[in-house]
Amino acid sequence: MTAIGILGSAGKMGQAIAAAVPDLGGTIAGGIDAGADRAALAALAERADVLVDFSSPSALAANLAAARTAGTPILIGTTGLSAAHHAFVKEAASEIAVLQTGNVSLGVTLLAKLVREAAGRLGSDWDIEIVEMHHRHKVDAPSGTALLLAEAAAAGRGIALSDAKVTDRAGLTGARSEGTIGMASLRGGSVAGDHMVVFAGEGERVEIGHRAENRAIFARGAVTAALWLAGKPAGSYTMAEVLGV
Amino acid sequence: MTAIGILGSAGKMGQAIAAAVPDLGGTIAGGIDAGADRAALAALAERADVLVDFSSPSALAANLAAARTAGTPILIGTTGLSAAHHAFVKEAASEIAVLQTGNVSLGVTLLAKLVREAAGRLGSDWDIEIVEMHHRHKVDAPSGTALLLAEAAAAGRGIALSDAKVTDRAGLTGARSEGTIGMASLRGGSVAGDHMVVFAGEGERVEIGHRAENRAIFARGAVTAALWLAGKPAGSYTMAEVLGV
Amino acid sequence: MTAIGILGSAGKMGQAIAAAVPDLGGTIAGGIDAGADRAALAALAERADVLVDFSSPSALAANLAAARTAGTPILIGTTGLSAAHHAFVKEAASEIAVLQTGNVSLGVTLLAKLVREAAGRLGSDWDIEIVEMHHRHKVDAPSGTALLLAEAAAAGRGIALSDAKVTDRAGLTGARSEGTIGMASLRGGSVAGDHMVVFAGEGERVEIGHRAENRAIFARGAVTAALWLAGKPAGSYTMAEVLGV
Amino acid sequence: MTAIGILGSAGKMGQAIAAAVPDLGGTIAGGIDAGADRAALAALAERADVLVDFSSPSALAANLAAARTAGTPILIGTTGLSAAHHAFVKEAASEIAVLQTGNVSLGVTLLAKLVREAAGRLGSDWDIEIVEMHHRHKVDAPSGTALLLAEAAAAGRGIALSDAKVTDRAGLTGARSEGTIGMASLRGGSVAGDHMVVFAGEGERVEIGHRAENRAIFARGAVTAALWLAGKPAGSYTMAEVLGV
Repeated sequence: MTAIGILGSAGKMGQAIAAAVPDLGGTIAGGIDAGADRAALAALAERADVLVDFSSPSALAANLAAARTAGTPILIGTTGLSAAHHAFVKEAASEIAVLQTGNVSLGVTLLAKLVREAAGRLGSDWDIEIVEMHHRHKVDAPSGTALLLAEAAAAGRGIALSDAKVTDRAGLTGARSEGTIGMASLRGGSVAGDHMVVFAGEGERVEIGHRAENRAIFARGAVTAALWLAGKPAGSYTMAEVLGV
Repeated sequence: MTAIGILGSAGKMGQAIAAAVPDLGGTIAGGIDAGADRAALAALAERADVLVDFSSPSALAANLAAARTAGTPILIGTTGLSAAHHAFVKEAASEIAVLQTGNVSLGVTLLAKLVREAAGRLGSDWDIEIVEMHHRHKVDAPSGTALLLAEAAAAGRGIALSDAKVTDRAGLTGARSEGTIGMASLRGGSVAGDHMVVFAGEGERVEIGHRAENRAIFARGAVTAALWLAGKPAGSYTMAEVLGV
Repeated sequence: MTAIGILGSAGKMGQAIAAAVPDLGGTIAGGIDAGADRAALAALAERADVLVDFSSPSALAANLAAARTAGTPILIGTTGLSAAHHAFVKEAASEIAVLQTGNVSLGVTLLAKLVREAAGRLGSDWDIEIVEMHHRHKVDAPSGTALLLAEAAAAGRGIALSDAKVTDRAGLTGARSEGTIGMASLRGGSVAGDHMVVFAGEGERVEIGHRAENRAIFARGAVTAALWLAGKPAGSYTMAEVLGV
Repeated sequence: MTAIGILGSAGKMGQAIAAAVPDLGGTIAGGIDAGADRAALAALAERADVLVDFSSPSALAANLAAARTAGTPILIGTTGLSAAHHAFVKEAASEIAVLQTGNVSLGVTLLAKLVREAAGRLGSDWDIEIVEMHHRHKVDAPSGTALLLAEAAAAGRGIALSDAKVTDRAGLTGARSEGTIGMASLRGGSVAGDHMVVFAGEGERVEIGHRAENRAIFARGAVTAALWLAGKPAGSYTMAEVLGV
């Protein structure tokens, strides 16, 4: 059976992943958390058939290095990554199999596909806005999933998200600029994750959304993806490939 | 310029269509309403380049007959049609160009496409439910648009809607049957038309919806489709063809 | 410590209640399910300080009889009750403390209060519609909570719900009748329970809703109410009294 | 009949107000826009029984001065006011009748009442978030109505909104601070104005929202309030008083 090494095993996602592994036909190779020494990380990377990283951006470089040394595929679900982090991920994909994603649920993967298609069909006179809500403990905004959906919308339009994204809208903002993609984040309670993409045209709106009821769907998705990733050759993979959508 | 004959010209949609025609580059050939005699209808069908019918199901047979005699294309937007009505429409399409649709907005046409795709990708363990809301004056339920979306969902799944549709859910219903498509209708106020299709899986939901702010979007869509339909050869056409989605 | 007897202990709510009891400072006196004999039920009713019934309508008469014989307060959370069931409940309240409710969450209890107030302030030209969604295993519709909200709306308007309620809206329904309260039910996936009350006026809508993320909130509410009910004199009690709203 | 002077008469709200006046039993005393000279403004203030100001914050001081000189009551619906503007308004209320409000619809006025009540009943472990959407031409954020609802929530909790309000949530924000009130703004299409207040607790959410279908509801509300305000003695008035909620 495929042995999964969990990076960030004491976190909420790490624990949920450990709970989901047996049902989906894998085994747990072990877990590592902040403060572990480099030797323990290297040993886990050797022992595991695939690594799953839901730790934190600051641990990413060390995690990728260990995976590359051991030649072990790695799924990266950490959110809040910078451009530099994304460059590390890309570089690692030249040596090992890497799947980096802001969301691992089947529903969201499908959603991203629908958003890309809608953005491609509707002209730029349809304004795109994305709103998400997560629990009060989440430390970054917008969510990784919201950014993933925004990337899908930008790709559908054939533009770069970095040129179009608007995340601060307070005060005397002036009228909305055509072609921008607005993003807003709500935080509160124990919300596992709600996302909605609004396409607002003259006199009508199309709304495409996703509601996660609990973290278990993400854990199942992460384990499904990790089992799929184990044994794959070097390269960048996507959830859409895992799920065949 | 293309001359449009309006069947049901005194109704709310008929009036909105008349108001929308000039902006979109057509002219009005005239209008007919319940109680008009057959000669007036025949004359209008002769004079018009295309007919637009938002009258009532009871007028459909006479309207189609007049269109066939004159060889004039016809857009049918009337809702609440029976199987017999649909058979008339199909038969007429062997002689003239016919476009029958439950909704004429660009947003809804795109929505139907997205719903069909989602239904095709998600397994039957994702339950499909459709809820719509319209103003207090609407006399039929579910709306023509909701039925159009249900047809799209059924087509995506490769099943017949007539086998799957559940529109009465009150009392001791028992557990939900797998593979059914539930439909619910809300009525109130002046709502122009809201629709939402819910795909409910284990632990997550995908929601695809549309909100119409006013009737003008339907009128513009109907006129756009009528101008497109004028001059087309006999056959059945769809809004997706008009809009290229 | 207060000892709670669970009627319907093998059901989903029964199990969730058992799990919630320790955290809230009670103990479990025991549990009973369909098929248990009358002696076991009587013994549990004697032993418990309060009974909590989430079994089924068909068990209600026997459960109430046992509670009355033992003089033990009872919380009834079973949904799908008939008028005859409600008459039994009312009669029991002359001898023992009874709290019958369609919903035991703090959020819903507050919601009912807000709905009653809104219905009282807005004239009958604001149409009231209630839509709810629950998981695919739910066997009755509308939900007990939806009925509770409809009762609150009717009370706010000073009308009887039985005269106003419309739960079947399919086919050629005709225009909406003023003063009615429409109710619609969606079923699918694992939804713990979503409810929305819409007040639809001319050109605007007020929407008051509740989303339950999981069954644990109901279990905690039920235990909180049971602990409150233990030791109370005969009479009918409400969740609003338990929660002080 | 009461004569209404419209400040900002060429704007969208000014035009909608002019259209609504006849139906509601008033007359139009005249209109003024940016660039008008002081004499024209003074003459209109003299001639009118009540002024309605939907112009812009920069015109507020001059408009209030003219109203005070003429002793004419004034309704101020302009949004995007600063603390200094609010001080001007307060000072004017010592001499003339003033009604300053971020929203003039019956639905929103009721909503604010419900939000205040919910915020008062639910403890600070229920997080409050407000999200609004308006058309692409709106130049300020959050909307005046969203601020009005936030004030209602803060009042219900007995706190100052200025201490609690969070309008920028992007990047590494850290976990949510207890007691804060988050506000987010979406912009797009022709949306007349949607608002939702979310109370997010552990495992459940209460949502209280309002949807405006068109600007006419605000125009009717403004005229209703202006007719009510005409002839009132000096002081600060509220929409809740106008509507009796």
